[in-house]
Amino acid sequence: MKFTVKQIAQILEGEIQGDESIEIYNLAKIDEDAKPGSISFLSNPKYESFLYLTNAEAIVVNQGFKPKKKIRATLILVKDAYTAFSKLLDEYAKRLHPPKTGIEAPVFTSKSAVWGDNFYLGAFSYLGENVQIGKNVQIYPQCHIGDNVVIGDNTTLYAGVKVYHNCVIGSHCTLHAGVVIGSDGFGFAPQPDGTYKNIPQIGNVIIEDHVNIGANTVIDRATFGSAILKQGAKLDNLIQIGHNVEIGENTVMSAQVGVSGSTKIGKNCQIGGQTGFAGHIKIADGVRIAGQSGIISSIKQEGLTLFGSPAFHHNEFMKSFVLFKKFPEIAKRLEQLEKASFSSKKGTD
Amino acid sequence: MKFTVKQIAQILEGEIQGDESIEIYNLAKIDEDAKPGSISFLSNPKYESFLYLTNAEAIVVNQGFKPKKKIRATLILVKDAYTAFSKLLDEYAKRLHPPKTGIEAPVFTSKSAVWGDNFYLGAFSYLGENVQIGKNVQIYPQCHIGDNVVIGDNTTLYAGVKVYHNCVIGSHCTLHAGVVIGSDGFGFAPQPDGTYKNIPQIGNVIIEDHVNIGANTVIDRATFGSAILKQGAKLDNLIQIGHNVEIGENTVMSAQVGVSGSTKIGKNCQIGGQTGFAGHIKIADGVRIAGQSGIISSIKQEGLTLFGSPAFHHNEFMKSFVLFKKFPEIAKRLEQLEKASFSSKKGTD
Amino acid sequence: MKFTVKQIAQILEGEIQGDESIEIYNLAKIDEDAKPGSISFLSNPKYESFLYLTNAEAIVVNQGFKPKKKIRATLILVKDAYTAFSKLLDEYAKRLHPPKTGIEAPVFTSKSAVWGDNFYLGAFSYLGENVQIGKNVQIYPQCHIGDNVVIGDNTTLYAGVKVYHNCVIGSHCTLHAGVVIGSDGFGFAPQPDGTYKNIPQIGNVIIEDHVNIGANTVIDRATFGSAILKQGAKLDNLIQIGHNVEIGENTVMSAQVGVSGSTKIGKNCQIGGQTGFAGHIKIADGVRIAGQSGIISSIKQEGLTLFGSPAFHHNEFMKSFVLFKKFPEIAKRLEQLEKASFSSKKGTD
Repeated sequence: MKFTVKQIAQILEGEIQGDESIEIYNLAKIDEDAKPGSISFLSNPKYESFLYLTNAEAIVVNQGFKPKKKIRATLILVKDAYTAFSKLLDEYAKRLHPPKTGIEAPVFTSKSAVWGDNFYLGAFSYLGENVQIGKNVQIYPQCHIGDNVVIGDNTTLYAGVKVYHNCVIGSHCTLHAGVVIGSDGFGFAPQPDGTYKNIPQIGNVIIEDHVNIGANTVIDRATFGSAILKQGAKLDNLIQIGHNVEIGENTVMSAQVGVSGSTKIGKNCQIGGQTGFAGHIKIADGVRIAGQSGIISSIKQEGLTLFGSPAFHHNEFMKSFVLFKKFPEIAKRLEQLEKASFSSKKGTD
Repeated sequence: MKFTVKQIAQILEGEIQGDESIEIYNLAKIDEDAKPGSISFLSNPKYESFLYLTNAEAIVVNQGFKPKKKIRATLILVKDAYTAFSKLLDEYAKRLHPPKTGIEAPVFTSKSAVWGDNFYLGAFSYLGENVQIGKNVQIYPQCHIGDNVVIGDNTTLYAGVKVYHNCVIGSHCTLHAGVVIGSDGFGFAPQPDGTYKNIPQIGNVIIEDHVNIGANTVIDRATFGSAILKQGAKLDNLIQIGHNVEIGENTVMSAQVGVSGSTKIGKNCQIGGQTGFAGHIKIADGVRIAGQSGIISSIKQEGLTLFGSPAFHHNEFMKSFVLFKKFPEIAKRLEQLEKASFSSKKGTD
Repeated sequence: MKFTVKQIAQILEGEIQGDESIEIYNLAKIDEDAKPGSISFLSNPKYESFLYLTNAEAIVVNQGFKPKKKIRATLILVKDAYTAFSKLLDEYAKRLHPPKTGIEAPVFTSKSAVWGDNFYLGAFSYLGENVQIGKNVQIYPQCHIGDNVVIGDNTTLYAGVKVYHNCVIGSHCTLHAGVVIGSDGFGFAPQPDGTYKNIPQIGNVIIEDHVNIGANTVIDRATFGSAILKQGAKLDNLIQIGHNVEIGENTVMSAQVGVSGSTKIGKNCQIGGQTGFAGHIKIADGVRIAGQSGIISSIKQEGLTLFGSPAFHHNEFMKSFVLFKKFPEIAKRLEQLEKASFSSKKGTD
């Protein structure tokens, strides 16, 4: 892909300061190595120093911006540099990797499966009985869509996604490669002889609209009823969501988090990577949890920030942790006091 | 699916109290939102209060049960409510998602592969050379069964399972979507120049009967000999089992556990989610480990309960942890004693 | 496979002491159960006691080795037993699981895809537009190779690997089943209404030569530029590598490690299983980190050994941890001092 600075300025409705004929092949962050032929942007003034170092040949800046030193790059002045660059990025991404359409061969589609316009079904993908798929859906190769699954409009499933029977996926969702939706919850009834009997998992998974799910993440189906990922939830890679779990609107979860069965997490939470949640607990809205924390009981107060395994208030954890690091020194001080006390006792005897 | 209360009472050999014509479409837990048209059960008396709140229209209860308040739902009285409901659940599950049979097209089957009656081989699945498969086996779409693999009767592999060459899977096993069996163990010989040489992994994996393995879990093959999951072991999703590991009979492991190479875990253990095991250690039978624990040395005493990273006795961990939370207060008390000691010394000088 | 001891001695240029007609079917470690028909080796003298216990029927030993007791097994004397056995192991592995070649049917290959000699493309695999593949490459069944992907010579992708568009994989690499390369980085811009907008991820992943990646591991693509796994890096199963991450030469990472976005890890590091790294930090060369550690800030000193979550020096962590285990006893000592101090004060009043 190739744009001139002039073309870009037209797209962004910006004003050019410098050479408008420069050819742009790539986008780059201002604080990272930019190849020649890159365009970057400056929005946050604290990054201004990078402006004078970058190899980017064009830079989108806010109107009224005045460089303090000489700049090699051409400037494009716009109302809001962040928004303008973001628009450019969307445009670039669409051209770099345009949406796919059409049904490749071979695929397996049951007679009862139906789908909307602009459907992409990659080779070696499978649509079971009564599958219903909306408009503008992309299903990459080697996906398995089980019987009775429903998928909303404008949703993309990358290669090798597996959706078990009866699950429901909303509109504008993105499921990355290797995601598994609707596998059996981990339910076994202990028997008197020490063995376990499988408990059938007859519920399903409901994924609402605008949900993103990272590669190789697994969402188990409910024992009864539905496990639910609510609108706008964003899950990273390799996450485990147990049976009957509920994840609230716009809750964001980093990679390798594990949520045990029947736990309900509120909306607008931010969960750090590798955090684990015990089962059957409830997390209030807006809770923030640092990575590797262990949440073993319900959190009732909204907006708390937690850390530790088991986790408690982030600030209090850090105070305790600082002392933990100094524990040998603290133990020595205790010992010295004991000696002093012993000798002082002797002294006062 | 639709049953009348009358039909269900016949299946369960129960006695009806109330309207026998009610139509049942679903099963539900008594303490969760039941949709109209649901049947539930009451076995444990501590859940009785839910009986008066549930929207379930029929409830299976023990013979002799007398409600304390008026109930809208029809009751079905049986000898053992838990067992009866469990039977109903099995029946419902089988109808909801009946076993599949037949070989879909296209599949890839080597000339030397053999299989028993009632085989389901989903589209885009692959059977390598000399693969031997028993009766009533279901292999969902997009599975890869490597050369010389053996699979016992009544075993189900969901979509996208990959079994490497020479591995053995028993009877009555369930492997969920994306499971990998028999990938190379993580073995590299350090070279003088800082690089690593791959050590060939020539062993295999043996999975005994009645083993369940959760979605995207990985079991590495042994360097020599076999990595073994013994009869009745139950593994959740996204678990890592290193090379040469042995997991004992009826040991249950929650999601995201990691077991390093050559570690042997006893039978009837219960391992909490995200727990990690060092390599080359041995865990006694019946050990219970809380989630996120780190086990860095062998556990010789049977039936211990452990917690922490590194882990020690659960109760002792909790005692230490309670003090860790109060560490700032404890440090302050120490400081005050130091001041007092200093001034008292001055006093006694 | 079957060799006589005589044949093996010829391959290893070794001298036989004992019965040269014994038939060998398998290789085994000397300290583990060896089946009859196995060959083993003794290199490290501390394992000599196993020599008198093993069921192995032939043993490779160093020239000049003199057994202290009578041995049933035939000995093969060689210059360096470890190297010789390693050569035998490579030979055995190649025969056990020979490289595959040929294009199975059906596959999906775009018209613009090209490949070199001795190509294996397993059934149900997919090559997108402009894919370029070197010589002696093996791509097992059900792999998805996105548009514009480049793969070097002598690289193997096991079943179900998914490589997104524009990623680059070097020579002599091994990617195990279910690996995902190039999924979108986890980047979302928070909006005023609490929702998140997806930030397009227009970079790629570059995997250099001699890199191994374990089953179901995920490597996200960069937002801009490239996420890089440098030459000789070895990653175990179920690892998460975030966007814009860089992993140095010959760095080894055990299973279930998670590396957050934009973090750079040096060369020759050793990272224990389930360790987590915060984003935007830098780890010096040669750093060693124990399992389950949490690295929340940059490590500037080369060769450090760390432990804990958050992690600090391994030895210091262990000193603090030993005191943590004794915390109840330490708290009691503090309490006794307080009592003593109180009564001594009273005494001195």
